[in-house]
Amino acid sequence: MYPFNQAVESLLEIAHRCAQKGWLPATSGNLSVRLNGHPLSMAITRSGCDKACLKTEDIIVVDERMQVMSGYAGKPSAETSVHVGLYEKFPDIACILHVHTIFNNLLSERYFSISEGTGHISFAQHELLKALGHWEEKASINIPIVPNYANLERLGQAVTEAAYRDVPGVLVHRHGIYAYGESPEAALRHLEAFEFLFEYHWRLNQAASS
Amino acid sequence: MYPFNQAVESLLEIAHRCAQKGWLPATSGNLSVRLNGHPLSMAITRSGCDKACLKTEDIIVVDERMQVMSGYAGKPSAETSVHVGLYEKFPDIACILHVHTIFNNLLSERYFSISEGTGHISFAQHELLKALGHWEEKASINIPIVPNYANLERLGQAVTEAAYRDVPGVLVHRHGIYAYGESPEAALRHLEAFEFLFEYHWRLNQAASS
Amino acid sequence: MYPFNQAVESLLEIAHRCAQKGWLPATSGNLSVRLNGHPLSMAITRSGCDKACLKTEDIIVVDERMQVMSGYAGKPSAETSVHVGLYEKFPDIACILHVHTIFNNLLSERYFSISEGTGHISFAQHELLKALGHWEEKASINIPIVPNYANLERLGQAVTEAAYRDVPGVLVHRHGIYAYGESPEAALRHLEAFEFLFEYHWRLNQAASS
Amino acid sequence: MYPFNQAVESLLEIAHRCAQKGWLPATSGNLSVRLNGHPLSMAITRSGCDKACLKTEDIIVVDERMQVMSGYAGKPSAETSVHVGLYEKFPDIACILHVHTIFNNLLSERYFSISEGTGHISFAQHELLKALGHWEEKASINIPIVPNYANLERLGQAVTEAAYRDVPGVLVHRHGIYAYGESPEAALRHLEAFEFLFEYHWRLNQAASS
Repeated sequence: MYPFNQAVESLLEIAHRCAQKGWLPATSGNLSVRLNGHPLSMAITRSGCDKACLKTEDIIVVDERMQVMSGYAGKPSAETSVHVGLYEKFPDIACILHVHTIFNNLLSERYFSISEGTGHISFAQHELLKALGHWEEKASINIPIVPNYANLERLGQAVTEAAYRDVPGVLVHRHGIYAYGESPEAALRHLEAFEFLFEYHWRLNQAASS
Repeated sequence: MYPFNQAVESLLEIAHRCAQKGWLPATSGNLSVRLNGHPLSMAITRSGCDKACLKTEDIIVVDERMQVMSGYAGKPSAETSVHVGLYEKFPDIACILHVHTIFNNLLSERYFSISEGTGHISFAQHELLKALGHWEEKASINIPIVPNYANLERLGQAVTEAAYRDVPGVLVHRHGIYAYGESPEAALRHLEAFEFLFEYHWRLNQAASS
Repeated sequence: MYPFNQAVESLLEIAHRCAQKGWLPATSGNLSVRLNGHPLSMAITRSGCDKACLKTEDIIVVDERMQVMSGYAGKPSAETSVHVGLYEKFPDIACILHVHTIFNNLLSERYFSISEGTGHISFAQHELLKALGHWEEKASINIPIVPNYANLERLGQAVTEAAYRDVPGVLVHRHGIYAYGESPEAALRHLEAFEFLFEYHWRLNQAASS
Repeated sequence: MYPFNQAVESLLEIAHRCAQKGWLPATSGNLSVRLNGHPLSMAITRSGCDKACLKTEDIIVVDERMQVMSGYAGKPSAETSVHVGLYEKFPDIACILHVHTIFNNLLSERYFSISEGTGHISFAQHELLKALGHWEEKASINIPIVPNYANLERLGQAVTEAAYRDVPGVLVHRHGIYAYGESPEAALRHLEAFEFLFEYHWRLNQAASS
C-alpha cells in the first residue's frame, strides 16, 4: 500500500517520536508499514537496533513467511510473526506499532488473570475515544490482553485472534501493546490515544483505591 | 486583533511547545488567534492535523458562522463553535488554547458531579495565581467544569456560559481545558499556570488521602 | 564577579535547561548573576518574560536599590529584593536561581506549619548531599521554609534571615525555591540536587504512608 | 577493546541521552569505556563535570591504579575504583555506566536492610528481561544492593564482590546503579531495561499497597 521510500520515512519519524517519549526502551519494540497486500510484504525494523537513533539501514523488507526480500543486512524482528498475522487478518491496515511503556505494562498486569490466561481493559465515555474512531455518544471499548507466549508463532496467533478491527490495539501481558491503523498517521494516533487513556486510567484508579 | 502572519507564527510556536509536553495527544486539541473583532474572524488549526508537526498549511481562517474564509484545504476543527462563543462573549481576548492533559482530565473527573451535571475546582493562596492575573493577597479562584456534550453547538454554549472573564479557563468533563487570554503569550501563560496547579493539586490530594 | 557578557550567557543556558524540565512555568521564576560586590550590581531576568525562549534583551542590570543601571527596556523582577538580600548576606555567592517546581511546592506545603509560620525539611545520608557540598559521612541538612509574604521586601528579609551558607537553598511556602552558589555552575548543581532529593523524598513518603 | 576516539564518541552520545532523561543530575554519575585489557586502561568522565553538556575535554584516560595516563586537565571521578574493580572481575565487559535516578534510588532504599547491610530486588517473567540477556522462559533475576560506603575503595570492593556476570547491574543504597556490558550499546541497553523495570515495579507496588 506504501512505496518503500515513504514507508521508511514514516518509520524513522514515528520511531524518533516514540523513543523521545521513552516508549522504545532498551532496543525493544518493532514498527512496520505494509508495502503490498497480496502477496504480503512489509518494511519492518530489524531485530535489536536502537530506535532512538533508527537509520534507513535498520529497515528491511520481509514477506509473509518472514523471509528477508531486500534491504540491508540483519534479520527481521523476532516478533514479525505478530505483524504477519495482523496484516493478514485486516486487509485494510497499513501500519503496526509495537511499543513497551510503563503504563501499558501496568495495565496489562492489573487486568490480566493468570489463572484464566486472558484479560481486557474497558474505557467508556472519554473524549479521546474519538481518536480511536469511536465518535458515537456513550462510546465504550474493550482492549484485549493476551498471554506473553515465549513461542512467537503462538504469540502471533494469540494477538491476531484477540484483535478487533474497531479497537485498534491488543495488549500483551507484562510486555507491551500492538497498535495498528489504516496508515502510519492513524496507527500513531491510535497509539497516542491508548497511552493517554492508560496513564489516565492508572492514575485515576490509584487515587480511588487509596 | 492580530495579522494572519503573526497569528500563524504564534500558533506554530505554541503548538510545538504544547506537543512537546504531551498536551496535544493523538491529533487532539485546537488552537486559535483572533484576527478581527467585528465581524469575527480567527486563524484556527484545521481538524485532525498532528500538532506535533503543525505546518502553516494546517491553519485556516474562519468567520463567526464557522465558514472557511481563506487558507488551505481542510475543514475547521469541529470544536470551532466553542472558540466562536468565547470570542463573542469576551471582546478583549485574542487567543484560545484547547488541550487534553492527563492532569486536567483527572481533575475534570474528580470534581464533576454527573448527577448534577456540573462541577468546579478551587485554588487559593498559591503563588502561581499571579500568573492568572490574581495578585491580591489570599487570592482564590473557581474553575468551572461543564459536561462533555456530544453536540458541539451545545458544548460551545455550555463553555461560554460557564466562563468568567477573570478566571481564564473552563474544564470539560473527561475531555480537557479551554484556556484564553488577551494575547497568545497571555493564553499560554494561563494554560501553563493551570496545568501546574492541576498537577500540584492532584499529587497533594493523593498524598492526603493515602 | 562576572563580566556582563558571561553572565548573560550563563543565564540563557540555565534558563533553557530549567524551562525544558518545566521548572519555569507561566513566565514565573527569576535568575541572576552577580556582576560586582561593592557596590552590588547584578544581571537579572526582567519581569514577566518567557524563560523558555529567554533572550539577551530579557536580561537587565540592577543595583542594590533595585534600580535599573543599564540594559534593555523593562523592569526587574519584583522579587529582586530577595536576590539583593542574599547577595548582601553571602559575599561569596555569585548566582541565584528561583524556580517553581511541582515537587518543591509539594514539600513546601507538607513541611510548613501555617500556625507557626515556619517549617523545614531534612535530608540525611544520601549520596546527592555531596553535590550540595556535604561530603562528610552521615551528612544531614535542614532546608528552611518561609511564609510566602505578599510584601516582597518582607519576603526578601524572611528568605535572607532563614538562609544558611552551607545549605544553598530556601523554600517559600506554596511558591518555590531560591537556590544559590559561588558560580552559575554551582547554583545549577545545587538546584538539580535539591530537586532530585525533593522528588525522591516525596515519592518515598507517599509509599510509606499508603 | 575500543580505540580512544570511538570511546569518546560513545561516551558523549550516552551522556547526552542519559542527561536528557534526568539520570545524571547535579554533575553526578560517571561513565567509562575500556580501552585495553592487560594492562587495564579506560576512558572515563572526569570528576565534577556537567554531563548534560559533556565535551571531549571531559574524558580522560586512566590506568588500573587510577593514574591519569593522558587526556585533558582534571582528575578522574572519585568512583573510578568501582570501574577498575568491575573491569578486572569481568574481562569481557567494555563499558560501565553509573547514574542516579529517582526510581533506582527508591528501590535501593526499599529493598535494602540497614541492619543486615545488604539487599536485593527480584524481577521475574517480564519481557524486558530479554534485553538483559535472559531469553529463557520464566526468567528471573536478582539485582544486588550494597551499602553506600564513604570509603570509595571499600565501595569498589563491595560492588565488585556483589556483581554477577549474568545480571549486568549493581545498586548502591541511596546512591544509584552501576550497569555494564560487553559494548557501550549493550551497557546502555542494560541500563534502560533496568530503569524501565525499576519504575514499573515501583508504580505497581504502590498500587498494590494502597
